[in-house]
Amino acid sequence: MSSLPSAERPESFSSPSLVPKLHLYTVGTPNGHKPSILLEELHEAYPENDQLVYDFIPIRFSETDQKKPEFLAINPNGRIPALIDDNVGGHNVWESASILLWLIERYDKDHKFSFEDPKLRSDVLSWIFFAHGGVGPMQGQANHFARYAPEKIPYGIKRYQDETARLYSVLEDQLKKPESKGFLVGGKYSVADINVFPWVRSHAWSGIDITPFPHVQKWLDTIEARPAVYKGLGVPTRAKKLTKEEEEEKAAQARKNFGFGK
Amino acid sequence: MSSLPSAERPESFSSPSLVPKLHLYTVGTPNGHKPSILLEELHEAYPENDQLVYDFIPIRFSETDQKKPEFLAINPNGRIPALIDDNVGGHNVWESASILLWLIERYDKDHKFSFEDPKLRSDVLSWIFFAHGGVGPMQGQANHFARYAPEKIPYGIKRYQDETARLYSVLEDQLKKPESKGFLVGGKYSVADINVFPWVRSHAWSGIDITPFPHVQKWLDTIEARPAVYKGLGVPTRAKKLTKEEEEEKAAQARKNFGFGK
Repeated sequence: MSSLPSAERPESFSSPSLVPKLHLYTVGTPNGHKPSILLEELHEAYPENDQLVYDFIPIRFSETDQKKPEFLAINPNGRIPALIDDNVGGHNVWESASILLWLIERYDKDHKFSFEDPKLRSDVLSWIFFAHGGVGPMQGQANHFARYAPEKIPYGIKRYQDETARLYSVLEDQLKKPESKGFLVGGKYSVADINVFPWVRSHAWSGIDITPFPHVQKWLDTIEARPAVYKGLGVPTRAKKLTKEEEEEKAAQARKNFGFGK
Repeated sequence: MSSLPSAERPESFSSPSLVPKLHLYTVGTPNGHKPSILLEELHEAYPENDQLVYDFIPIRFSETDQKKPEFLAINPNGRIPALIDDNVGGHNVWESASILLWLIERYDKDHKFSFEDPKLRSDVLSWIFFAHGGVGPMQGQANHFARYAPEKIPYGIKRYQDETARLYSVLEDQLKKPESKGFLVGGKYSVADINVFPWVRSHAWSGIDITPFPHVQKWLDTIEARPAVYKGLGVPTRAKKLTKEEEEEKAAQARKNFGFGK
């Protein structure tokens, strides 16, 4: 009989007196880290709000957890991350960016990571869709051809690494504007940044050289230095810094489990 | 000196007494058709609202209009579609789904193509991100490898056609639920459907067999029969039904202009 792993608690909510009402189904990938980072940021910004207590269910690609009926009932697309919000009687949210927007709408009442102004809200959406339709899928394809594909296809590697670098150049142009203050929208750190940060952070794994993009590098460093980001990157487990050899081994393992929907 | 083509008027707003305040930069592609369909739907639903009068600027890939400075000032990513809303003093919106959400927020006051309930609004977002990060980019890659790539790479063709078909199967499973009433969210036609319809409609060009997905086929037929959809598909020009030979010629032309950002 198939079943999903049990829920675990992040360090921030280890106290047993807190009852998690948000349940995050996740893996330690760029898409998985988006909601855990925002959940940790929200908790730090609104410590009095018990509705933000969450636990997480570590999905195992090796067991194809993401295609089990229990999970497909939450996300019909069979991919991570997904969230159940029991504060509102059990609402299922899926797709990383959809989860971020749900959390912001419900829990960021003071607009600490979002905006009240309709034009800035719309700017956030434009940058979120830019990342969700561009950086995520294209860098994902770069990973596929450079790391996971059973045959080496130089055309595919070059196509997606080049396009990812072009997308980074769009981020660079935005971040280098003085009025940006080093963030994508409205001169402040927001959900627009959180939505793309975990992808750009993994540029080395994807074979993308970041040195032509100094403002992107500075933005990465600024975000990575935030305590909540550090905590969010530890869900479901903290990845250790890999040597080149360990990276190759990880890629070889991943090739064995290869498929879409991961 | 580079410059963009002049604005043209869709048939629905040919009267010179109407002053367009919405300016759509577009091409007759799936992403381009999303906003023109919604604009026509909104006009039909709210005929008294003059703020919905729009014109369109036909972007020419052959002239690389989408990478000219005038266009990059509107969409820093250099892709179509983009929208300028002069009803609010000149707001630029880019990314097809971001444009849909902007239009809905501002102009669909009676929720004719959207929802008031927060959970249903969130469901719309999950399906929109599913399409924007899945169907669009993956079917786009299928088009690339099957139609545009200078070398034939069977691995790439199969990878993206298979994944697109898998994504269609997710749509099929949703549309066949009785409570769906044949639409993706909340039992009614909404922006969630409009956001993915033009992609699925072009399945044949992408080499995807639709016959395993009868509920998707029915959904396509239902949406295609709407007068506003017919009008939206005529912006910037109405494509005529191509013969196999004409399709091959179109693909050969497209290969000449090939690049990302189209």
